[in-house]
Amino acid sequence: MATDIVTRLQVDPMLPDTLAQQIRAQLTWLISSGVLSPDDELPPARSLAASLGVNFHTVRGAYRKLEEDGLVESRRGRRSRVARFEPRHLWPQERAARTHLVGVVLPSLANPFYADLLEGAQDAARHSDTMLVVVTTRDDQAFALRSIAQLAAKGADGVVVVSHDISTLVEQAADAAGDRRLPLVTIDRPGSHGHSVEADLDSAGYLAARHLVEDGHRAIGLVTIQGPPSNVAPIETGLRRALDEAGLRLQDQDVIRAEGWDLLAGAAAIRALTGPDGRLTGPDRPTALVAISDLLAISTIRALGHAGLRVPADMAVTGIDDIQLAALVEPALTTVSLPARSMGVRALEVLERLWDGAVDRPARSVLDVQLTIRESCGPHAS
Amino acid sequence: MATDIVTRLQVDPMLPDTLAQQIRAQLTWLISSGVLSPDDELPPARSLAASLGVNFHTVRGAYRKLEEDGLVESRRGRRSRVARFEPRHLWPQERAARTHLVGVVLPSLANPFYADLLEGAQDAARHSDTMLVVVTTRDDQAFALRSIAQLAAKGADGVVVVSHDISTLVEQAADAAGDRRLPLVTIDRPGSHGHSVEADLDSAGYLAARHLVEDGHRAIGLVTIQGPPSNVAPIETGLRRALDEAGLRLQDQDVIRAEGWDLLAGAAAIRALTGPDGRLTGPDRPTALVAISDLLAISTIRALGHAGLRVPADMAVTGIDDIQLAALVEPALTTVSLPARSMGVRALEVLERLWDGAVDRPARSVLDVQLTIRESCGPHAS
Repeated sequence: MATDIVTRLQVDPMLPDTLAQQIRAQLTWLISSGVLSPDDELPPARSLAASLGVNFHTVRGAYRKLEEDGLVESRRGRRSRVARFEPRHLWPQERAARTHLVGVVLPSLANPFYADLLEGAQDAARHSDTMLVVVTTRDDQAFALRSIAQLAAKGADGVVVVSHDISTLVEQAADAAGDRRLPLVTIDRPGSHGHSVEADLDSAGYLAARHLVEDGHRAIGLVTIQGPPSNVAPIETGLRRALDEAGLRLQDQDVIRAEGWDLLAGAAAIRALTGPDGRLTGPDRPTALVAISDLLAISTIRALGHAGLRVPADMAVTGIDDIQLAALVEPALTTVSLPARSMGVRALEVLERLWDGAVDRPARSVLDVQLTIRESCGPHAS
Repeated sequence: MATDIVTRLQVDPMLPDTLAQQIRAQLTWLISSGVLSPDDELPPARSLAASLGVNFHTVRGAYRKLEEDGLVESRRGRRSRVARFEPRHLWPQERAARTHLVGVVLPSLANPFYADLLEGAQDAARHSDTMLVVVTTRDDQAFALRSIAQLAAKGADGVVVVSHDISTLVEQAADAAGDRRLPLVTIDRPGSHGHSVEADLDSAGYLAARHLVEDGHRAIGLVTIQGPPSNVAPIETGLRRALDEAGLRLQDQDVIRAEGWDLLAGAAAIRALTGPDGRLTGPDRPTALVAISDLLAISTIRALGHAGLRVPADMAVTGIDDIQLAALVEPALTTVSLPARSMGVRALEVLERLWDGAVDRPARSVLDVQLTIRESCGPHAS
């Protein structure tokens, strides 16, 4: 282990940073990246100094700094070890000079909603000569945390975290001294602590359902994902409110849960219900479905089509998002437009204001949504 | 101007970098970002020192370093000025320590092809604990150059440049001393100097056209963009080769040029040719079209549909790319699959090998493509 680490460290006296700074920065990176794990021993200062060709006190100084940072533990007579990993240890130690780097942590770019959001963030960043460090996590919460720590270690001016629950992290950060706070904004995760930017998802669910009610539908279902996270729950709340106003109810058997956001998961969920006497073909089937995202709506329409159900004649379907694709599928999707680009822009604006010290307490920005009517819904033929 | 700059500089004696290093780094950033332009005067060292509360010699030292960097010019008795901007001045001065930041410069994320490519790069980067600094340029060549300079100023380990012509830049870099070379890989720009990763676009054009020929089409057109850049020309070459083998020719009047890559541009180009007696509805119209991208193919199919031409019955259409959308539109798109993800992965691998010194001369990676048959083509009814 120790040998392995030694080969990954390099120092260069020609660089502007001191040798101790270089060693500290590289070990911080290895710890924040998880290459060095808690309880791993650091090489003895003497042997590391020898192999790097630097003075023993230089390495000792770097180790001492890492101890002050909370990243390393030393005990008399024992080798220094990596401490239990806590992201706040990587929070900036000092109010640093501006790096003009901002991190954006998001689940994936395969969903065009996130690509649009990132484009918005890029526009705002360009405006303030900032560059975006982009990390996609595939919904891996632990990796998201790790990435935020890495961004802190890189001295990022701030981090935007999209569709991840980082409440714990934000609380930890708030516990730390004020000067150590890393400017952090969450997008699309209602209920997060700290600064957040959201679309009005409650209204999104409400508008989609009310549109179907106005078209005469009385049995309306929901296509959602399993164990809905906090950025889905408000959609369901809004939908139930619209039904309630019309004296209707969301029946448990009309809630269809896909195993994920992608198109295959949506199609699989619908296919399971469109077999002979399946729920969606049975006599008391719903006549309209609200899907919580455009991708799920599109896969729903495809799967219904393969089962011989026509949209909108046999089943009305709405999405939520309004990705570019929504206007291009056949039938074009009626959906609720979420302001993906504006959410990206807003998050960067909030970071900018945090940096300038213009914001002192957590603020929640909720952006408006609107119904966009296309072809996938129509009056219920009763 | 000078006042403006002074307000943008901050120094902090608590930071690890020396005050002179902080001033130099911040001025470098302002120059690379274009906030300071060539011929702009720097504030006199004495007045800057006074307003920052630092020693005159500290500022003088920073200015002298900037002069050595080639970013600033000083003449006796005159104020220091920003020098003519040359990106190579921002090339790393020394073989720096690894920053684990890699830049990716790409036109846009609105095209799913680029989102896929970036996901591939993200996977490869995650594998080597590297973070990606992502810049979207909207095809703005000058901004791309500027961004590369900014990435160099940030000490990036390397830069991946997608679909931009940076030959000039690469040549400048090669002129500079070997140690000052910024590892740089271009993607999707055949004919670039330096290290490059490409899809086999000649085969893409060939496979698309041969498929149509085999289906019995004798009059095949091309939907492309105006003033095709070097990542489009090979498609046309391959297409002509396939026609040639079949004793056919691409007629000039069957080359349809859209004003851009996006869906609106494609639809506009097709609509102009589908009016009464338009080229695509006239008696000697082509019976099949190869579009140089899936987005153009999809907008072509939509525009043909609005003009009453059915695909594939009245007109066969192929795309090139195989974005996720291609399988979801109606009719599903026959296309040539380009390995977008693999191109992203490969570019990061090349950078890694450049960093390790394992590559000494420019290498070109050409990745395979393949025909994916879906529904948008069919035998010509002759």
